[in-house]
Amino acid sequence: MNIAVLGVGTVGEQVVKILQEHKDLIFARSGKEINPVVGVVKNLEKNRDVNIELTDDLDSVLNRTDIDVYVELMGGIDKSYEVVKYALQNKKAVVTANKALLAYYRYELQKIAGETPFGFEASVAGAIPIIKSLREGLSANNICSIEGIMNGTSNYILTSMMKGDTDFAEALKKAQELGYAEADPTFDIGGFDAAHKLLILASIAYGIDAKPEDILIEGIDRINRADIFFVNDFEYTIKLLGIAKKVGNKVELRVHPTLIPKNKMLAKVDGVMNAISVISDCAGESMLYGAGAGGKATASAVISDLIDIARGTNLPMLGYKEPQKAGNFELLQKDQIQTKYYFRLEVEDKVGVLATITNIMSQNNLSVDSFLQKPHLISDDDNMATLFFITHTSYESDVNNFIDLVKKESFIKAEPFMMRIEE
Amino acid sequence: MNIAVLGVGTVGEQVVKILQEHKDLIFARSGKEINPVVGVVKNLEKNRDVNIELTDDLDSVLNRTDIDVYVELMGGIDKSYEVVKYALQNKKAVVTANKALLAYYRYELQKIAGETPFGFEASVAGAIPIIKSLREGLSANNICSIEGIMNGTSNYILTSMMKGDTDFAEALKKAQELGYAEADPTFDIGGFDAAHKLLILASIAYGIDAKPEDILIEGIDRINRADIFFVNDFEYTIKLLGIAKKVGNKVELRVHPTLIPKNKMLAKVDGVMNAISVISDCAGESMLYGAGAGGKATASAVISDLIDIARGTNLPMLGYKEPQKAGNFELLQKDQIQTKYYFRLEVEDKVGVLATITNIMSQNNLSVDSFLQKPHLISDDDNMATLFFITHTSYESDVNNFIDLVKKESFIKAEPFMMRIEE
Repeated sequence: MNIAVLGVGTVGEQVVKILQEHKDLIFARSGKEINPVVGVVKNLEKNRDVNIELTDDLDSVLNRTDIDVYVELMGGIDKSYEVVKYALQNKKAVVTANKALLAYYRYELQKIAGETPFGFEASVAGAIPIIKSLREGLSANNICSIEGIMNGTSNYILTSMMKGDTDFAEALKKAQELGYAEADPTFDIGGFDAAHKLLILASIAYGIDAKPEDILIEGIDRINRADIFFVNDFEYTIKLLGIAKKVGNKVELRVHPTLIPKNKMLAKVDGVMNAISVISDCAGESMLYGAGAGGKATASAVISDLIDIARGTNLPMLGYKEPQKAGNFELLQKDQIQTKYYFRLEVEDKVGVLATITNIMSQNNLSVDSFLQKPHLISDDDNMATLFFITHTSYESDVNNFIDLVKKESFIKAEPFMMRIEE
Repeated sequence: MNIAVLGVGTVGEQVVKILQEHKDLIFARSGKEINPVVGVVKNLEKNRDVNIELTDDLDSVLNRTDIDVYVELMGGIDKSYEVVKYALQNKKAVVTANKALLAYYRYELQKIAGETPFGFEASVAGAIPIIKSLREGLSANNICSIEGIMNGTSNYILTSMMKGDTDFAEALKKAQELGYAEADPTFDIGGFDAAHKLLILASIAYGIDAKPEDILIEGIDRINRADIFFVNDFEYTIKLLGIAKKVGNKVELRVHPTLIPKNKMLAKVDGVMNAISVISDCAGESMLYGAGAGGKATASAVISDLIDIARGTNLPMLGYKEPQKAGNFELLQKDQIQTKYYFRLEVEDKVGVLATITNIMSQNNLSVDSFLQKPHLISDDDNMATLFFITHTSYESDVNNFIDLVKKESFIKAEPFMMRIEE
């Protein structure tokens, strides 16, 4: 089985190396020799640590008749879509690690692929076989929910903030120094990376099509030391979660920093590690834990797809052989989401403030589950206080109305901050 | 696709029910209707909560030409081996949850099955897709080690002992009252159940054949409050682990109560839950967590195999298409195992005791990593003390020699107790 590797960066190098170094093992397991025969790169001048023919002529590689599988590791969306489409139209199998491509084009690609194998285990959470577990391992189940720590950068930063005495900026800087965060970290800390992965998993669980711009995405950059203080005190931890949840015949999809009880398994996942917890109606809770990124871990997932193809496995790409029977789930509108909410308000400490706030809450159907007022947490000013609330389960629309109204009050001294809670 | 369910107990009932209740979902995912058409039971008089034809005539069901897959849930070894063999010889696919059968006959059955599908995901850790994850998800990797909490009963008891103030007998009684432990709990607490599962996983990871009697198996029944005291104090927890580990060209296989550091992910798995941690050379650590037993969770795994068969997936049963190339691992002899060891000795508190013990240790190549002496932990007698040692990495053979020698000393007042440590 001959492989062309399109894009020979950190992951591509490892795909080639592991295929070569584990040649005997892979033959024993798959029954075939899986040979990387050519790599396509943009810049032939750049030094690469691989023992394989390299070319910058993508078109000629796409037209080679001796290639059985194209491994797409170019990244980006539009160009890679054209490349993958071309290969599939020529009935060539494709394996990709490109989550952005799939977040936008997975249904188009499924249609074009038809019976041609298309593997993308590496697109979600590197070494964790979550695509396989959902599509095959849990295939007998209705999926109640998926909650996952799907971004190692954010989890590293949040773990540092929860455990140490660092604030967001320091934790980010440390992550950048260690190579866990990019120079421009927006994609990771803004929740976009996790959202791409969540959309892929939601398709397999629910057969639902949605694009990143359709769903609620919030990042972790507004969390401060006061939040950490409260959260620790109330036995929660904060994780950036991707959440897909069945609510009747609708599915809610959201990515945001989330307060979860310290005794949940997900709460125990620290540092750059990823973990995804699935609740299903027969199997109960299953959690998968492992490295979410890194050249070797991602290459391991790419090659697992290649071995599946070599073994003759050909599964329905998004998990449904009869997609029209997939349950017809609709996306729940953002403002219809219901959960418990956490608020932090910086207020002037004067008579009537609490009464005003609680009045606006009750006008918007919010009721208080827990409350804490602390002076001097954020400012040394004796006239300032920090208020923390946790609500009972409420509608997102009511919460947004409350924030819009309360921030008009003159005693509110900073933009109110809200996080959602999953018990 | 027509299914016969051989054995309609807790799991079999759920297999039938879920296939019926999730009919549309399973059709959408698999592309086929999967119909349970007949169940075989020993006693037709017993009331069963299933809507399916039942018979006690196993032979006639085995000879029906309209059955495509036999689901073997009879349990036991010899009879079920004959039944499964007969079905496979007739080129009928088989799915089983029977770990004891596989612990003894997996290689014979692989040979008989040939190209006929044979699923056994349900045989190890119920709802956790560990067979699939090892055989497919991690197929690009050399497996360095597998460490797993594979028995919920034992984990429930150990969790109670670690967290509460119960001793082994009380914790077992509570587990029995809650239905987590059998009236005769030997199979679970003695490590035999976990050993069966470990042997199955070791075949997929290493292609190694071994029987339960070939490997080291110890149970949890000798652990007492003094051990819990020490273990808590030294930041360990105790788990009954099944361990498979590659050591050069050999594989060690063992099941025993194990001290592991509290900050390991496996240490955080409490109650009846199971979890299996795999370290592999490309993917690093992966851990899968979920329900290890229960009718619905086990049925979920059985049906995932049926859906794989319906989708046309046919994988090499034990993970190797070319078994002769599987690495030729040999089983490491028990006495060649190397790890760190924990000892508890009940001694008379008199001059020279420690000198004698440490002399016997050094004569047997054991050196001390940590040491604690505590009076009054087990006995109120002022003349008695409890000694705890942790050794540096040592050979099992040296440890056994040490125990044989030290227990002959007159100051040793109870059978010495030893557990192994995995850092």
